[in-house]
Amino acid sequence: MSSTTTRLSRPTHLKPQTRPLLFPFSARQKSQSTALWKTVGELNAEDKKKQQAIKSSDPYSSDPERHPVLRINNLKPFNAEPPPEILSDSYITPSAFFFKRNHLPVPQVDPASYQLHVEGLPGGVLTLSLEDLKTRFPKHTVTATLQCAGNRRSEMNTVKLVKGLNWGIAAISNATWSGAKLRDVLQAAGYGPEVAQWARHVQFEGLDKDVTGTTYGASIPLNKAVTEEGDVLLAYEMNGQELPADHGFPVRVVVPGIVGARNVKWLGKIIISAEESSSHWQQNDYKGFSPGTDWDTVDFKSAPAIQELPIQSAITTPADGAVVDRSDEEVTVKGYAWSGGGREVVRVDVSLDGGKTWQVAQLRNSDKGQAPEPMPPPGRAWAWKLWEVTTPLPPEAQELEIICKAVDNSYNMQPDTVAPIWNLRGVLSNAWHRVKLCFCSRLTSTGQEM
Amino acid sequence: MSSTTTRLSRPTHLKPQTRPLLFPFSARQKSQSTALWKTVGELNAEDKKKQQAIKSSDPYSSDPERHPVLRINNLKPFNAEPPPEILSDSYITPSAFFFKRNHLPVPQVDPASYQLHVEGLPGGVLTLSLEDLKTRFPKHTVTATLQCAGNRRSEMNTVKLVKGLNWGIAAISNATWSGAKLRDVLQAAGYGPEVAQWARHVQFEGLDKDVTGTTYGASIPLNKAVTEEGDVLLAYEMNGQELPADHGFPVRVVVPGIVGARNVKWLGKIIISAEESSSHWQQNDYKGFSPGTDWDTVDFKSAPAIQELPIQSAITTPADGAVVDRSDEEVTVKGYAWSGGGREVVRVDVSLDGGKTWQVAQLRNSDKGQAPEPMPPPGRAWAWKLWEVTTPLPPEAQELEIICKAVDNSYNMQPDTVAPIWNLRGVLSNAWHRVKLCFCSRLTSTGQEM
Repeated sequence: MSSTTTRLSRPTHLKPQTRPLLFPFSARQKSQSTALWKTVGELNAEDKKKQQAIKSSDPYSSDPERHPVLRINNLKPFNAEPPPEILSDSYITPSAFFFKRNHLPVPQVDPASYQLHVEGLPGGVLTLSLEDLKTRFPKHTVTATLQCAGNRRSEMNTVKLVKGLNWGIAAISNATWSGAKLRDVLQAAGYGPEVAQWARHVQFEGLDKDVTGTTYGASIPLNKAVTEEGDVLLAYEMNGQELPADHGFPVRVVVPGIVGARNVKWLGKIIISAEESSSHWQQNDYKGFSPGTDWDTVDFKSAPAIQELPIQSAITTPADGAVVDRSDEEVTVKGYAWSGGGREVVRVDVSLDGGKTWQVAQLRNSDKGQAPEPMPPPGRAWAWKLWEVTTPLPPEAQELEIICKAVDNSYNMQPDTVAPIWNLRGVLSNAWHRVKLCFCSRLTSTGQEM
Repeated sequence: MSSTTTRLSRPTHLKPQTRPLLFPFSARQKSQSTALWKTVGELNAEDKKKQQAIKSSDPYSSDPERHPVLRINNLKPFNAEPPPEILSDSYITPSAFFFKRNHLPVPQVDPASYQLHVEGLPGGVLTLSLEDLKTRFPKHTVTATLQCAGNRRSEMNTVKLVKGLNWGIAAISNATWSGAKLRDVLQAAGYGPEVAQWARHVQFEGLDKDVTGTTYGASIPLNKAVTEEGDVLLAYEMNGQELPADHGFPVRVVVPGIVGARNVKWLGKIIISAEESSSHWQQNDYKGFSPGTDWDTVDFKSAPAIQELPIQSAITTPADGAVVDRSDEEVTVKGYAWSGGGREVVRVDVSLDGGKTWQVAQLRNSDKGQAPEPMPPPGRAWAWKLWEVTTPLPPEAQELEIICKAVDNSYNMQPDTVAPIWNLRGVLSNAWHRVKLCFCSRLTSTGQEM
C-alpha cells in the first residue's frame, strides 16, 4: 500500500461568510466578524482614524488584538475558536489559538494596582496584590483542558434552533497554567474545619462588567476548591507567559475538569458562601434540560448548574466536507478526546461504516516528538488526549462518513445521536462526532484522470 | 380520563425455562435452576435424603437457602436476580431479594473465631476480631446501590453472544449498610502520609475459595479508601440485620459508587499495596473493550479495571412483552436510575415514540409514604433513585415501545444503542432501556370485546 497524503480543502460549511445566520444579533455581528477577518493587520490610515473616533463610546474599544486565523462567532463580546486542525497539531494549544469565550468587554487591569479580595471567612476580608499572589504562595503548574459548555452547539442547531453562539467543534483547548493554589489562598484567608460546617460554595466575581455595572460571576462546590486533589489555581501564567488579556490578565481561576464558565477571568473577588453564585450564568444559564423542555416551560431551578462536563471527542481532521483523492488508499483521522471531573480518556473508537465496526485509535498526551506527560493520579486527568488512526479507504465509495466516540475510565460513553440530547440552550453537545468526506478523482493538467 | 390500571403478564422472554441457553455450562445449570425454581420449599422426604447423600462432596452444600422468587442465572456458584418489579416497589431492597452474585461457594465462617488481617503497613499486620470491628470503631451507616458489571448483559447477547451470566435488568439493588469505616481501620493499622508516598491500592481477599485454594480478590484505588468522602465500609450489617450469608457474613467491604465486583464479601484480608490485586477478576475480567475486540485479539492490560460505573437506568414495570388492555388510556412506567462515582441522577427521560419526544419522570429517593432521604453531599450520591411517569397510551397502536434514559449531575447520558458498546465480556451494558408492550382487547365472559 503506497503512503499517500489526503489533500483537504476547507469545508464550505465552516467558512465565515457561509455559516448559517441564526439570530438577529448574529447576522449583524457576522458582517463585523467577516470584516475583521479580512482587515486585521491591514487597516489603512483613514480607517484607523475612523476607528479611533468611535472608540471612546465603545466599551469593547480596549479589547486586545486577536489572531486572524480565529473563526469569530461574536465580535462584541469577543468569541472565537481556532480552525479544528490546529487543535490536533499541538498537545498544548498556543495561547493565541486557544478558544476565546468572553461574556463582556475585556477589562483593562493595571497589574500594579490589582487587588484580589477574599471574603466570607471568619477573619474578615483578605486583600492580595498580584505580587502577594506570586510571592506568598507556592507556584503550581497544571496542564488542563478548558471547554465551553456550548462546544459543538452548531450540531444541535441542525436538529432545531437553540439560543447561543454557533460554536463548531473547537470551543475547547489545552494549556499549561501556573499560579497559586486556591486552597492555599483560602487557608491563608482563614479557611478551616469550622467553615466547612456551613460553607458549600466558592463564588468568583470577574472585573468585567456590563453597562449596568453587573460583573460576570460563577461558583464551584467548596469541596473542589479545598481538597488537595482539586488542583484549582489562581493562575497568573498561561503556557509559561503572563496571562493574555483575553484569558483573564492578570489573574483567572482555573478549575480543572469543570466547565469553562466557572473558570472566571479577570478575577476580582472570591466569596466563601453557603449558596451558589446568584449570577445569571449560574442560575439561569449553563444548565441542561430534556429535549422536551422549551422556553415556555423551562424551570431553571429544576436542573443543576453545569460543573463537571461529560465525555467528549471530535474529529479535527479531515474536516467535515473535505474532498479526498480517489487514488488515496488510506486516510489519517485525528482528533481530541476529554472528559470532565478528572476522568481519564481510556479509548477512542473510530468507525468508517456508520458505527457497524470500530477501530481503536492511538492516544497521546504529549506534543509529537516529546516524551508523554507523566500519568496523572487517579481522578486528576485534567488534560485531553489527542488521538490518531490511519485506516484504508473503502475503494468504491462516493462518500464516506467517519465517526468517533470516546470512553473515560468510569466507562462513560458518548451518546450516539444529537436529537435526544438536544436542549434549549444547546449546551453539552457530545454525541458521536461525524464528518463526511467526498471523493474526487485526481486530474492531470490537461484535465484527464490520472 | 378514567383512572385505569395496566394489567401485566409475565414477559415470556424472562421465564427461566425459555431463556436462551448460551453456553454449555449455562445449559447444564439451567436445568438445575429450573428444578430449583419449581421445588424450593416443596422437597419430599426422599429428595431430601438424596440431597444429603451428595452433600459431603459438594463445596456448595453449605450454601444458604434462597427466596424462591429469585430468578436464577447460575446455581453453583449461586447467581440470581429478583423480578424487576420488586426493585421499583421498594427504595431499600429487602435483603432476601437483593441480587446475589457469588463467584465461589459461600464459606461458612464462625463469627466467634473470625479474623480480619490488615497487611502492608509499616506497623506490621493488624488482626481484628468481629467484636473488635464492632466495638473499637464508630459504626457508620451508608445507603448504597450495588450493581454487577454484567447487569443487562442479556441485551448484549441479542447483538452477538458474550461470555458471562445472562443477567436481565435486576443485577442491581439498594441497601443500607452499617459497619466500621475502612479509613478508620487503616488509620488504626498505621496508615499515614508516609504510606501515601508509595501505596496506590487497597487489595481485598475473600474467605471464599476454589478447589485449588485460590480466594476471590479485588482492589480499589487507595484514595477512595482513605478520603473522608469515600464512605467505604467494612460492613457487618445489611438493612439493620447482621449480613446474610449470601452477602458476605460476617464482614464485607462496601465501596459506594464502585462496581459490585470490588465489594468483596466474606472479607479475610486487606492489603495496602503499590499494585492492583493480581487476581483474575482484577486483571483479566471486569474490563471494557471496543466492539471490535474479540477473544483472539484482546489484551487485558490495555483497559483499566472497572471501578466507577457509568450512568444507568431501566424500566422495571411494565415488563418487556407485557400485554396492555386496549381500553386503558394511560400507562404508569416505573424504573430505577443510578450512576457510579457518587454522581447523582438528576433526570430521567421517557419516550413512547422511539426517542422522538421525551417526558421527564418524577424521581424519588425514599420508600413511598416516607420522607425523602436527605440530599447527599456533592459527589456522595451512592444510592439510586426510583422514578415513575404516567402517560397517555397512543389510542391506535398495536404495539408500543417505551424507552428510558437517565442523566447524572456530570451530565453523562446513556448511549442510545447496544451494538456500539458491545464488548466480549458483556459488561457495562447501559444503553437506553426499551420495553415493548402488546395491546389486547378486554373481552367479556362470552368472548366479546367490551
